[in-house]
Amino acid sequence: MDRDMGFKTGRIEALSDGIFAIAMTILILSFETLFQQPVPGIKEKDLMDMMKTYLPDLLHYMESFIILGTFWYLHHRQFHFIKKVDAIAIFINIIALMFIALIPFSSVILGDYGNVRPAAILFECNLLLAGLTFFGHWIYVSHKHRFVNENMDVETVKFYGKRNMLIPVVSLLAGLVSFFQPRMGVSLYFAVPLILILWKRRDEQ
Amino acid sequence: MDRDMGFKTGRIEALSDGIFAIAMTILILSFETLFQQPVPGIKEKDLMDMMKTYLPDLLHYMESFIILGTFWYLHHRQFHFIKKVDAIAIFINIIALMFIALIPFSSVILGDYGNVRPAAILFECNLLLAGLTFFGHWIYVSHKHRFVNENMDVETVKFYGKRNMLIPVVSLLAGLVSFFQPRMGVSLYFAVPLILILWKRRDEQ
Amino acid sequence: MDRDMGFKTGRIEALSDGIFAIAMTILILSFETLFQQPVPGIKEKDLMDMMKTYLPDLLHYMESFIILGTFWYLHHRQFHFIKKVDAIAIFINIIALMFIALIPFSSVILGDYGNVRPAAILFECNLLLAGLTFFGHWIYVSHKHRFVNENMDVETVKFYGKRNMLIPVVSLLAGLVSFFQPRMGVSLYFAVPLILILWKRRDEQ
Amino acid sequence: MDRDMGFKTGRIEALSDGIFAIAMTILILSFETLFQQPVPGIKEKDLMDMMKTYLPDLLHYMESFIILGTFWYLHHRQFHFIKKVDAIAIFINIIALMFIALIPFSSVILGDYGNVRPAAILFECNLLLAGLTFFGHWIYVSHKHRFVNENMDVETVKFYGKRNMLIPVVSLLAGLVSFFQPRMGVSLYFAVPLILILWKRRDEQ
Repeated sequence: MDRDMGFKTGRIEALSDGIFAIAMTILILSFETLFQQPVPGIKEKDLMDMMKTYLPDLLHYMESFIILGTFWYLHHRQFHFIKKVDAIAIFINIIALMFIALIPFSSVILGDYGNVRPAAILFECNLLLAGLTFFGHWIYVSHKHRFVNENMDVETVKFYGKRNMLIPVVSLLAGLVSFFQPRMGVSLYFAVPLILILWKRRDEQ
Repeated sequence: MDRDMGFKTGRIEALSDGIFAIAMTILILSFETLFQQPVPGIKEKDLMDMMKTYLPDLLHYMESFIILGTFWYLHHRQFHFIKKVDAIAIFINIIALMFIALIPFSSVILGDYGNVRPAAILFECNLLLAGLTFFGHWIYVSHKHRFVNENMDVETVKFYGKRNMLIPVVSLLAGLVSFFQPRMGVSLYFAVPLILILWKRRDEQ
Repeated sequence: MDRDMGFKTGRIEALSDGIFAIAMTILILSFETLFQQPVPGIKEKDLMDMMKTYLPDLLHYMESFIILGTFWYLHHRQFHFIKKVDAIAIFINIIALMFIALIPFSSVILGDYGNVRPAAILFECNLLLAGLTFFGHWIYVSHKHRFVNENMDVETVKFYGKRNMLIPVVSLLAGLVSFFQPRMGVSLYFAVPLILILWKRRDEQ
Repeated sequence: MDRDMGFKTGRIEALSDGIFAIAMTILILSFETLFQQPVPGIKEKDLMDMMKTYLPDLLHYMESFIILGTFWYLHHRQFHFIKKVDAIAIFINIIALMFIALIPFSSVILGDYGNVRPAAILFECNLLLAGLTFFGHWIYVSHKHRFVNENMDVETVKFYGKRNMLIPVVSLLAGLVSFFQPRMGVSLYFAVPLILILWKRRDEQ
């Protein structure tokens, strides 16, 4: 009976979309000001100065948002080819989401201490683990065409495997660079969406 | 192969709906009281006085909620016509959502310092950037009918382009007014949903 | 062209489900303890005492959760019959959601000052306004079968109108009772889901 | 008329997915550091020490995330077989979600006072109640094939009933162990996903 042979992917996609949406939105928690009492009768100049101090936070917010968006894109791209899932695939996915939902935390630490090495490396480890779990998920579902279309050629399967290794590879590089220049390492991630947009198979859009 | 030629729009809509829903709901974070210890044995009169101090926060909450709802409406309206998306459209959308998810932050600043110029202008810049990204998204997907129905006539494409310029135009006006009267500038946005309801093509509902 | 004559309801339902889900989940913010530093080396007895102080918060959490669930049920029930929406229906819905998303705030105030009159009345006003907006939404979409199935008989339309007046009526009663006994008034809402389960048309489940 | 005989399950699934997604994501609130001011000019060694203090929080985060994921899996598995729901099933589901949304709260307490008995037992009671409500939901919808496929054989119905008793049974065991060793009791839950992956019917995947 087909009903018993696997789950449709609709709900794991819905759960994932929800977790991505929340993780992306609560990145604004990194703005400490949200939890502070307003300063009564502030002068325009002082408010300007105060707002300048948000600038590094804003940059981290933007970077983390784009990184989460990139993971979402990879997730979306994987499930584009996945027909159904089983319990093991679901739990691999949940572990991937566990690392995704941790990114706002790593991002707060990075925003607070971005020029200190352990903060940058924590952030990069987090992305490395999330990326590796995504890669493992693809290997599991695509192995011997377990849950992907039988007609999908092996080249395409391998191509998406490689694309899912992009974030782990960038994370290792970033970790190396962060060892010498914490902030510079983290900024390497800005390249990932550009690479993903450009590096594609001829037959896809 | 059609499967490779583009993504269905279901999931980018789901992610967007999620981010809008969360951004709208966490607007209540602007009520500082949520994070305060209760005052033990408060008198009825004192509680009334305390609640009166929430009134400006409540107005800002309502305005920001309606503004976010208006952006959601524009997003919904765009995707009503979009058949599929590619990586570039997805990343434009993610950048738009990045500005959307920032609105609760700008709104907290506005709630705290609404009568000081930089707070009003930050809020208006945020909406300007969100609005421009939405406009850019429409230009990208509708250019040469890239992802919209081939039968959509050019007039309709242009009409929705103009409607997506409404928020950027109002933001520029609001910025100008805020230069003299911070609070008054911000209140211009209340007109946007009314304009959207009234300003429509004869053949639509 | 049908495509231009109205929106499918899928996305307004998704936005609403998202806002309900978040409002229900962030009710736990009413537990002040979430934002407190842990007490180091606490004794078992002291922790027990501390946990006893959460009990009223827990009751308010449960009540507000059930009330939000009841609104969600009414929303779900309405959209069960709605075929499409227009801009006006969408903005009525957004205003309804604005009051829904405010419930966690009113609930925190109620949790902190439940035995003081203005806190109970604020909570009841919030539910009254949410309920009236839901009622207005039903009137708008069902008037002359605007967006409901043409075959829906007038009796059924009226029946659901009446059911949508249940929360406003209970809110007025609760407000009256709260004038004398704040906590007792608020507890009237526990009756609503029971009434909704029992009070139904013979032909529905 | 079929339309009146019950609700499609799409929206209660969407609401549930939303609540699960949020509950899982706000588990990071258990990291107190999110709400703390950054220490200016921190040394690398001090940051390392600070980060070591997050380790127990991280473990609790991971455990609670996996537990919530497991509940989601059970929910998903139930609705795989459910064709429609009525008001009673919806309110049972809402009560189940009420206990699910409470898990981030119990988890914060557990993270703060994991080695003190009442904290562990609170957490286990929370999971026990959530598990029992899930079990009750399955009994209600599957009783005399009320809302499940008529062809579903009684063995399968019973099998899923038993699987839904897994978390309540583990919770009772964990409570017993926690009486002597608070932390050890709580760690029993790590076995649940493994049991669920292995303990399945021959004909399912």
